[in-house]
Amino acid sequence: MQAQTIEITKFGSAQDLEMKNKALKEELADDEVLVEVNYSGVNFADIVMRLGMYKDAPPKPFTPGYEVSGVVKNIGKDVTRFTVGESVMAGTRFGGYTSFVILPEWQVLKVNADITLEEAASTPVNFLTAYIALHEFGRIRAGDKVLIDCATGGVGVFALQMIKDAGATAFGLTSSPSKKEFILEYGAKAYTHEEFEKSGEKGFDFILNSRGGASLKSQYEILARSGKLVCIGLQEAIHNGKSSLFAKIKAVIQTPWYPMLKLVMQSKSVSGFNALSYFDDDVWMKKHIKMIEDNTFKPHIGGVFKAADVASAHEFLEQRKAKGKVILKWDH
Amino acid sequence: MQAQTIEITKFGSAQDLEMKNKALKEELADDEVLVEVNYSGVNFADIVMRLGMYKDAPPKPFTPGYEVSGVVKNIGKDVTRFTVGESVMAGTRFGGYTSFVILPEWQVLKVNADITLEEAASTPVNFLTAYIALHEFGRIRAGDKVLIDCATGGVGVFALQMIKDAGATAFGLTSSPSKKEFILEYGAKAYTHEEFEKSGEKGFDFILNSRGGASLKSQYEILARSGKLVCIGLQEAIHNGKSSLFAKIKAVIQTPWYPMLKLVMQSKSVSGFNALSYFDDDVWMKKHIKMIEDNTFKPHIGGVFKAADVASAHEFLEQRKAKGKVILKWDH
Repeated sequence: MQAQTIEITKFGSAQDLEMKNKALKEELADDEVLVEVNYSGVNFADIVMRLGMYKDAPPKPFTPGYEVSGVVKNIGKDVTRFTVGESVMAGTRFGGYTSFVILPEWQVLKVNADITLEEAASTPVNFLTAYIALHEFGRIRAGDKVLIDCATGGVGVFALQMIKDAGATAFGLTSSPSKKEFILEYGAKAYTHEEFEKSGEKGFDFILNSRGGASLKSQYEILARSGKLVCIGLQEAIHNGKSSLFAKIKAVIQTPWYPMLKLVMQSKSVSGFNALSYFDDDVWMKKHIKMIEDNTFKPHIGGVFKAADVASAHEFLEQRKAKGKVILKWDH
Repeated sequence: MQAQTIEITKFGSAQDLEMKNKALKEELADDEVLVEVNYSGVNFADIVMRLGMYKDAPPKPFTPGYEVSGVVKNIGKDVTRFTVGESVMAGTRFGGYTSFVILPEWQVLKVNADITLEEAASTPVNFLTAYIALHEFGRIRAGDKVLIDCATGGVGVFALQMIKDAGATAFGLTSSPSKKEFILEYGAKAYTHEEFEKSGEKGFDFILNSRGGASLKSQYEILARSGKLVCIGLQEAIHNGKSSLFAKIKAVIQTPWYPMLKLVMQSKSVSGFNALSYFDDDVWMKKHIKMIEDNTFKPHIGGVFKAADVASAHEFLEQRKAKGKVILKWDH
């Protein structure tokens, strides 16, 4: 059986991503599921990988992609949770940009009847990232004042819903004035980065930072007593989809080190995480399968691109044009 | 009216603490309460101050002490929450080692009928420290695995009760094998520091560190994914009640700096706080008065010393002889 698959064969431009045909093995192992992929989620980490800046990526050539949705086409004899023809989503731990994928059963997730396959492909990474930030690190609760600096992205859309659901107050930032309306629709306060700086708002119990670099310094300052700053990325290292060595060095140099003695004196918390590393932890993932499947928050689909047009999908995301999630569509 | 008060007039030995007579002002302001002090709580921070190592202490000579219990002797005309003769406890923001104290009403707290005045003087600092660590920074919940490295101290006793109450699992450490029984009585697992290192236990969701220095490094390593390390002190800088310059420099050098990029790669959280700084924040304190008053966890009284014998009280605490709380008793 043949699958189409998109590979990173050299680091650099989105135009260098290559579509290839690849043979799938004929026999499933007893615990495996064959999924015909309808949609593959695109994440900012995929761009970081394409630029050669993702330390834990496999050696080239490799297929990026951490999530898919589609339909079960075949199952191994020990598989009990799925039947052929069922709609599913899955975390793929690389390899998600493909038209067919074989996965162990525990990586495959049921799709709630309320969501489309487009939404299903937009859920695993962004939902889990927002969940880990807000409910593992932050453990937010009613009354908390929460700042989301990537409010219009895939993670931000889930985060804004979770904050409202927890009874906390969300402040959402965006680089573009035209996206403020989108943030307001989720019941959050909306600011451009410039407006927010001028606003003098402070006293945040929790801040989700996706940019790294110098932005961490100013956000640390506006934490409340016992406030928590959580960093999930270093987007400042990437300038308009290019890995500028200058931007990278600047972002790394400006990303702070925190002396414990300073944290003690100032009563603050700093942390960071890489959601993709949780996908690699089968013990953790198995514990959270039901929570992901039962999730009722919805992604916002910001762009659906044909798989063959993956370069446009990457450029759309890296130029910060998207609101919500960007996904690839496979035709069958 | 005369009060007795204990002053730090020079930095150094516990023997240098001086008992003095001091005139109290005759007239209370409208919002003030005069408390006849029965007990003054002794905290490790008082020792740090006596050694001249507490940055935010007032200029010498000054009276240390952050908490008292006693009886209301007089009230200003706007005071509504208290009547003369009522038992109270209070956070004093320095000045607690004294036989009478005048405080603004908001710093004074009702004493739950279930606890003695000895217990009341042992509550504000230790209860709040454990609360801030576990329920503000940690926000622990059922199923969490929690390590308390000062399990037999005043903070530890409250922490062990709170962890059990939350349905989490507590691991308590002590420097002395003879104190393990004490930890077990609170429903926690008990280890000496050496036993714990050999045990290979890891995967902690929350670690409360009171020692600073090199201990932070090994505790960071045994954090779970999304685990939180909270530092509340630098006890390693103090060796057997002496401010050894060598111990201090060593502890400060060994107390780590955390690069944000490392936290992101390793999915961990680090933080610290100084509970006494929360006492200085009237907005925060006013919000938490009811919670402190309604607290039903109990301190363990580890030593009651006559106020005149304050030097022995300090030595007892700094030589880690105490289990639970050390307090001073004032005779009236």
